[in-house]
Amino acid sequence: MKANETLLDLLLEAQFLDQVPRSGYVLRGIANPESVTEHSWHVLFLVWVLGARIPGLDVQRAMGIALVHDLAEVRLGDLPRTSARYFPQGAKEQAESAAMAEILAPLPADAQALYEEYLERKTPESRLVKACDKLQLMIKVMVYEGWGAGGLREFWKKEANFPDGEFEPVAEVVAALRQRHRERTASSPADQIGKSV
Amino acid sequence: MKANETLLDLLLEAQFLDQVPRSGYVLRGIANPESVTEHSWHVLFLVWVLGARIPGLDVQRAMGIALVHDLAEVRLGDLPRTSARYFPQGAKEQAESAAMAEILAPLPADAQALYEEYLERKTPESRLVKACDKLQLMIKVMVYEGWGAGGLREFWKKEANFPDGEFEPVAEVVAALRQRHRERTASSPADQIGKSV
Amino acid sequence: MKANETLLDLLLEAQFLDQVPRSGYVLRGIANPESVTEHSWHVLFLVWVLGARIPGLDVQRAMGIALVHDLAEVRLGDLPRTSARYFPQGAKEQAESAAMAEILAPLPADAQALYEEYLERKTPESRLVKACDKLQLMIKVMVYEGWGAGGLREFWKKEANFPDGEFEPVAEVVAALRQRHRERTASSPADQIGKSV
Amino acid sequence: MKANETLLDLLLEAQFLDQVPRSGYVLRGIANPESVTEHSWHVLFLVWVLGARIPGLDVQRAMGIALVHDLAEVRLGDLPRTSARYFPQGAKEQAESAAMAEILAPLPADAQALYEEYLERKTPESRLVKACDKLQLMIKVMVYEGWGAGGLREFWKKEANFPDGEFEPVAEVVAALRQRHRERTASSPADQIGKSV
Amino acid sequence: MKANETLLDLLLEAQFLDQVPRSGYVLRGIANPESVTEHSWHVLFLVWVLGARIPGLDVQRAMGIALVHDLAEVRLGDLPRTSARYFPQGAKEQAESAAMAEILAPLPADAQALYEEYLERKTPESRLVKACDKLQLMIKVMVYEGWGAGGLREFWKKEANFPDGEFEPVAEVVAALRQRHRERTASSPADQIGKSV
Amino acid sequence: MKANETLLDLLLEAQFLDQVPRSGYVLRGIANPESVTEHSWHVLFLVWVLGARIPGLDVQRAMGIALVHDLAEVRLGDLPRTSARYFPQGAKEQAESAAMAEILAPLPADAQALYEEYLERKTPESRLVKACDKLQLMIKVMVYEGWGAGGLREFWKKEANFPDGEFEPVAEVVAALRQRHRERTASSPADQIGKSV
Repeated sequence: MKANETLLDLLLEAQFLDQVPRSGYVLRGIANPESVTEHSWHVLFLVWVLGARIPGLDVQRAMGIALVHDLAEVRLGDLPRTSARYFPQGAKEQAESAAMAEILAPLPADAQALYEEYLERKTPESRLVKACDKLQLMIKVMVYEGWGAGGLREFWKKEANFPDGEFEPVAEVVAALRQRHRERTASSPADQIGKSV
Repeated sequence: MKANETLLDLLLEAQFLDQVPRSGYVLRGIANPESVTEHSWHVLFLVWVLGARIPGLDVQRAMGIALVHDLAEVRLGDLPRTSARYFPQGAKEQAESAAMAEILAPLPADAQALYEEYLERKTPESRLVKACDKLQLMIKVMVYEGWGAGGLREFWKKEANFPDGEFEPVAEVVAALRQRHRERTASSPADQIGKSV
Repeated sequence: MKANETLLDLLLEAQFLDQVPRSGYVLRGIANPESVTEHSWHVLFLVWVLGARIPGLDVQRAMGIALVHDLAEVRLGDLPRTSARYFPQGAKEQAESAAMAEILAPLPADAQALYEEYLERKTPESRLVKACDKLQLMIKVMVYEGWGAGGLREFWKKEANFPDGEFEPVAEVVAALRQRHRERTASSPADQIGKSV
Repeated sequence: MKANETLLDLLLEAQFLDQVPRSGYVLRGIANPESVTEHSWHVLFLVWVLGARIPGLDVQRAMGIALVHDLAEVRLGDLPRTSARYFPQGAKEQAESAAMAEILAPLPADAQALYEEYLERKTPESRLVKACDKLQLMIKVMVYEGWGAGGLREFWKKEANFPDGEFEPVAEVVAALRQRHRERTASSPADQIGKSV
Repeated sequence: MKANETLLDLLLEAQFLDQVPRSGYVLRGIANPESVTEHSWHVLFLVWVLGARIPGLDVQRAMGIALVHDLAEVRLGDLPRTSARYFPQGAKEQAESAAMAEILAPLPADAQALYEEYLERKTPESRLVKACDKLQLMIKVMVYEGWGAGGLREFWKKEANFPDGEFEPVAEVVAALRQRHRERTASSPADQIGKSV
Repeated sequence: MKANETLLDLLLEAQFLDQVPRSGYVLRGIANPESVTEHSWHVLFLVWVLGARIPGLDVQRAMGIALVHDLAEVRLGDLPRTSARYFPQGAKEQAESAAMAEILAPLPADAQALYEEYLERKTPESRLVKACDKLQLMIKVMVYEGWGAGGLREFWKKEANFPDGEFEPVAEVVAALRQRHRERTASSPADQIGKSV
């Protein structure tokens, strides 16, 4: 009984993740941008679609990792990237871990283990989630630019925004996306400008 | 190559699911309500959390079902419930199936099979997804009412809005949620009124 | 007394039409786009302005048609165009008619007759409403593109988006609008690109 | 040709009326409230429905009056009611008339005459539009309060917010609306409080 | 006691200034644009930063002027610029002054004096506030255009939108801003077009 | 020249503060809540109004402190309160200070000194800003609850949300605000409930 009340609290609190917009988009003037929940769904979808094409990968575990990987943001918010270099080393990770420990408390211990697996990036499953996390970013940027957003051009120039080449199915989607982007900018010189402000 | 272009199109189009707000909330004046993507993430989370407590249930397959179950709405929109009784029998289901066949075309055939499994409700996995679909609705209603929404009271009175008792872990959360709701309305008589307009 | 309660219900429900955004804009990332109510007002305005320039046209009846022509969307939502080819033939029309019959029930029978006249397109009044329905779409597209929207370029390439030449006053506005659009794209090559994603 | 360019300018500018939210709602915290365009559509609908029940009333002319009655707000904005007592006597009316003269310039002179008829309130048609303008306000207030709005209670206490008894079909709707409101507040004491801040 | 109730009313009402979006942006389709409160904060920040570089300027008094200069809009709304030429001469100023007299009543008389100082523009402090009021407009236009807004290009062509050269620190920022704008439009021809609709 | 480019960058970046909504409101479902810029303006207004009533207080310096006190949020976001207990001790303060040092770099050193003064709370000026920071929170909560917000009731129960009694003019406003709140809840029992979810 008490346990289910605690579980209910977790399920209610998880709804608040919809109220956390992705800060990078907000700060670049995207109206009503993707929430962390929406980002997380798309990462899950990518993991499910692309994970099935990677021999030997445990898709169910990868999906569990994807489900929990951004949950801490319900208590920490989505800190903008610019914030990273101001915190003392390891402080954000420590805060995230502490928040996750509380958030996941009503769940069996393996939920917590999945989050730690994500942090360590030692398994292909955790690295696939990270790769899909990045891939989803660039797919969304492509969509927002198609709608008229002008402040995202710099994203294409930063190699770290793209997943590395570890997983071939991921790399193929990246290649197709880059190609699509090249075709767009070829016909629209304005889209080539790097700096928006 | 061509295949990945098609896959890319699917991944780009999936982002548009964020642009489909849940119509029941929109029509009741909830500002910036849950998108179909957000609803779907929460259903997935419930399936993952509660499915693990159901002996013998194939959680990975249930998560696949949850991932695809609302995808057709990217092309059909989220039709309000009131629309159901106006369409000729089976028309909406036929439209959804036709849309799904096209949307899922770039994926292996088992994606399509998961959707059909969901429609038939013959397996525990498909029924768990449906149960979590309903449970998530009532959890969100609880959250929105806590924020001040006045137009959702009728949801608590319609038994069909709640999952049936097939899965004990689901039933326990439902019981905790109803209890929480009773406590709230006990202290606030205004919350007992059924009709909002 | 009872009748006015029913009429009151209709008048209250009509307010909900403001909560139905035009789906084509939502799916192309227009923030806070036109509602069905707003679209309908602009169609009415066009019918009133242009109808007065068409000899022999019954403007009052045309305005009645324009007032009712999208009312069903308060119960069906604004289905995206992509949905059209998935429904069995005639299903959407049947749903709309069934919804309209209920919505218009508190009104005299001629309200229903106006809607049927619109569906049949046999009278100049009904065809003028349809022509203005299309013209308003392209006028709004012109406005949204001026504000920076990038996802609407394809609208200009589809001849079916424009009214045909039946009514000269309509055709003159269409010609002026196309001319204005040509001037804009001539000075801004980026606006010539057809595909946004 | 030149004339139609001017007409096109009017039709384009009219779209901007959607960008003018009703200030009374904005200032009371209604999220995404009714635009002037939406208000105007509902007034038109009321005029069309109720005007048909008033013997001898020229519905077409009344609809024309309703179409133009708020057009000046595209250039003046929707001034909050509180502003009225600060302007020198007649200044707002003079500004509205001056704006209307320019806005309606591309139309035949009878458009301007309809606006003047509205200002004078000497004809039943102009008074019906004013009555429906008020009635629509209170219908929308009823809807917004049903959704949870807390800042609108004072509207029910000010007799001037309601149309007078000149037109029986209007009075019947007002009576039904008041009755509905009494039923709601009877079951919810919180709705009886007058002052929101 | 009574005095503090009145002061409280002022402080509560001041919060409503957040509900007044800057009308020029709204009418050009900027989603969720700057409120009058936000504009006013940025003007204050400019006055504080640039005022400190102007020898002999009384920064504290300039900040007081900046704090009150737009307060009347909480009761009048933010009238669009187009409205200016429709009001009888002096009517808007008279309305603003009348509103300010009431709004500032709970404060000592020097608050009222600051507003009058602003209207007269006889002191450097009042002229600096006006200069920063204009400078802030163009800085925000730069930001919104960087995000993709298409309807603001005309602002750059109207000399009256820029502060004059009275204050050197202001003039230096203006020069840097114009330079930044030239660089942007040089690389993006589309940004050079003047007319958006 | 270079210096003014840097100053321009600061002024442009400051505009982004409008894009940082106050997280406490977002997480409680307030639609379009106060931005950090708006909060900061109201704090400034309180400091200006109440500071003038405190003998010997340096209002200009207090206003400078108020202007800078939340600037770091343009790079860090507005971290929800819940986040506080997860970060290692002092980490957030360290991040804020590091961000402030960069943000304020284009300004004279005394800007930085004002921020440090705020952190230390050793002067009445810095403590007044903090007192007004709290007072503004509760004033806004009063406004949002008047509009129908249901999730903010807990704010009234936490003594730490209110300024202490150091400054009499602040304490008088607090007393008036509490009195106003008591009157509201006396007539509306529903407003007395503490827990919203």
